[in-house]
Amino acid sequence: METPTPCLILDAARVRRNHARLATYAAAHGLRLRPHAKTHKSLEIAALQLGTPETIGLTVAKCGEAEVMAAACGDLLVAYPVVDEQRSARLAVLTRDHTIRMAFDSEAAAAALSSSASHAGCIIGALVDLDVGFHRTGVQSAAAALQLAQVIERFPGLRLDGLMIYPGHIGGPSDEQVRDLAQVDAILSEVMDRWRRLGLPLPIVSGGSTPTVYQSHLIKGQTEIRSGTYIFQDMNGVHGGYAALDDCAATVLCTVVSNAVPGQVVIDAGSKTLTSDRCWAALDSGFGHVVEYPTARIVKLTEEHGQIDIRDCDRAPLLGERIHVIPNHICPCVNLHQTSYWQEPGEPPRLLRIDARGMVI
Amino acid sequence: METPTPCLILDAARVRRNHARLATYAAAHGLRLRPHAKTHKSLEIAALQLGTPETIGLTVAKCGEAEVMAAACGDLLVAYPVVDEQRSARLAVLTRDHTIRMAFDSEAAAAALSSSASHAGCIIGALVDLDVGFHRTGVQSAAAALQLAQVIERFPGLRLDGLMIYPGHIGGPSDEQVRDLAQVDAILSEVMDRWRRLGLPLPIVSGGSTPTVYQSHLIKGQTEIRSGTYIFQDMNGVHGGYAALDDCAATVLCTVVSNAVPGQVVIDAGSKTLTSDRCWAALDSGFGHVVEYPTARIVKLTEEHGQIDIRDCDRAPLLGERIHVIPNHICPCVNLHQTSYWQEPGEPPRLLRIDARGMVI
Repeated sequence: METPTPCLILDAARVRRNHARLATYAAAHGLRLRPHAKTHKSLEIAALQLGTPETIGLTVAKCGEAEVMAAACGDLLVAYPVVDEQRSARLAVLTRDHTIRMAFDSEAAAAALSSSASHAGCIIGALVDLDVGFHRTGVQSAAAALQLAQVIERFPGLRLDGLMIYPGHIGGPSDEQVRDLAQVDAILSEVMDRWRRLGLPLPIVSGGSTPTVYQSHLIKGQTEIRSGTYIFQDMNGVHGGYAALDDCAATVLCTVVSNAVPGQVVIDAGSKTLTSDRCWAALDSGFGHVVEYPTARIVKLTEEHGQIDIRDCDRAPLLGERIHVIPNHICPCVNLHQTSYWQEPGEPPRLLRIDARGMVI
Repeated sequence: METPTPCLILDAARVRRNHARLATYAAAHGLRLRPHAKTHKSLEIAALQLGTPETIGLTVAKCGEAEVMAAACGDLLVAYPVVDEQRSARLAVLTRDHTIRMAFDSEAAAAALSSSASHAGCIIGALVDLDVGFHRTGVQSAAAALQLAQVIERFPGLRLDGLMIYPGHIGGPSDEQVRDLAQVDAILSEVMDRWRRLGLPLPIVSGGSTPTVYQSHLIKGQTEIRSGTYIFQDMNGVHGGYAALDDCAATVLCTVVSNAVPGQVVIDAGSKTLTSDRCWAALDSGFGHVVEYPTARIVKLTEEHGQIDIRDCDRAPLLGERIHVIPNHICPCVNLHQTSYWQEPGEPPRLLRIDARGMVI
């Protein structure tokens, strides 16, 4: 039976190739991998990532993701500032059988985690979240980083394990963007120098984001990289210049459900299937790339409809025809799907659960 | 115990008031209600809507939504063009115990539904989807509408039940927009006249969308209205001029998790909690409205972080503080949540499942 549409199709060969390429790069530069599971949210793909010796653990954002991924991995970094007792208590429970680390930027978070760890009689590893230019979270200066590190050292139940950075403001590997990486390197170097001069422990310096992951060696001192999107890639990567179309391992298979309006077809995938995320590097490129009709443009999404402008296509997609769309941003797209189909070359697709879908907490 | 964040909070009194207001309007104008369940995706809220005599059934978009809502309602309109055998077969099964109607715009859809209905030995009600200006789906002329109606009459297993329109291009109730409604009325009138002159049955003329729902009486001949968003409202409604802030019945309760970057706080709700939907009537208004800090602006969402510009606030939200956000577009936001909290006045919130969440098929 044909897979029902819309559905998420994962190209197994491309997933393996994307991971092998990054593992090879990491090995060449003495970096370890801690892939961010937010992209795939799948225990099976986590196991694939953990199958290479370079992969030492996983990254997650949410408490619920940590609880799910704990089944696949004994070493988890929660790269998210947990400031409340409820979440910190849930995470403390996991430390009984797992190495759990948290990254945060406030004394309040340290206090909440310390309290939960002490109550559970466990130790939580702590990384100081240092802002290197993305300006989302992270302490703002070397002095603030050192101060928070010293606070962590004094809190019971916490173990100071190092630093976390996120160079998410550098959207690709162009020459100009590589110069921005030199700035990140300079900020990090200063903090690391002063950190070591105070005799503070620094076993981990965690960094990396997908757009510049293959330039990670330019930021010296990093011990591990946390890329997530690299495993599937998406149109952000293609338009951002750090992925090729044939790296894109996740597509949404859709059916053409209407062709009543001239110059347009409608697919059964709208914002509840593809997300409303635009492509940040090509704002006018529409809401994804149609593999079979590369000159088509998905110009408008409503919740369950995708309107495709086909006026530049050589031929019109037929009513009932099935077409593949590469989404702009694959991570929130995966989060909309309870299941996906894992496609091995030459085999029928098989169901693969999105185990940690919808873990908002 | 406090509800964990982020979570969706539903204000029971406002939900009831929003529904009562529409039911009163419908009764005054002899219109029946067939609310679109896509907004709430909840059996319990469906039951509330069905509790007024004006409500004669529900609307859904997806096959999976129909299967879930079948537990609450015996009369469902699938307002979506189903063109494949798989979906039409699943829907045909429901006709054993339910009145099921479908709206579509192609002979291919009629053929698929007729085949499934004949195979199941049942009858599916059919509405011709007529485009009145939104240009998404729908036949393009009176002639095309009549032609499809006559095709439906000839197909076994189908019962011609009338017309469906969606005036979704009219984004609000301003004077200019009300003039656009007159155009819709003119298009529909012509089709209805010619339809009746051919002796075709027309028991149902289904219309209505939330922005102009209280102007529905201006489109003559409509028998039922299908609004969905009216039950919760959202910032699209507030900025579009058809809802007040205190009509908004669904908020996302968030926690401030970082205040490290000057002039900004970060909440634990990003695009995987609020969606990336911008407010179509106020593109620069950010990604939702912060109830406790009305001058704050949610300027950027990443997957799990919402960055709020607080420079215009009288006081800064504290780390760990809990704040309520009214989303731009509540329907896809609800779809991101497995559960919500139903808040009766003066009572502790109780869990309410989002029963039809994530029904992509």
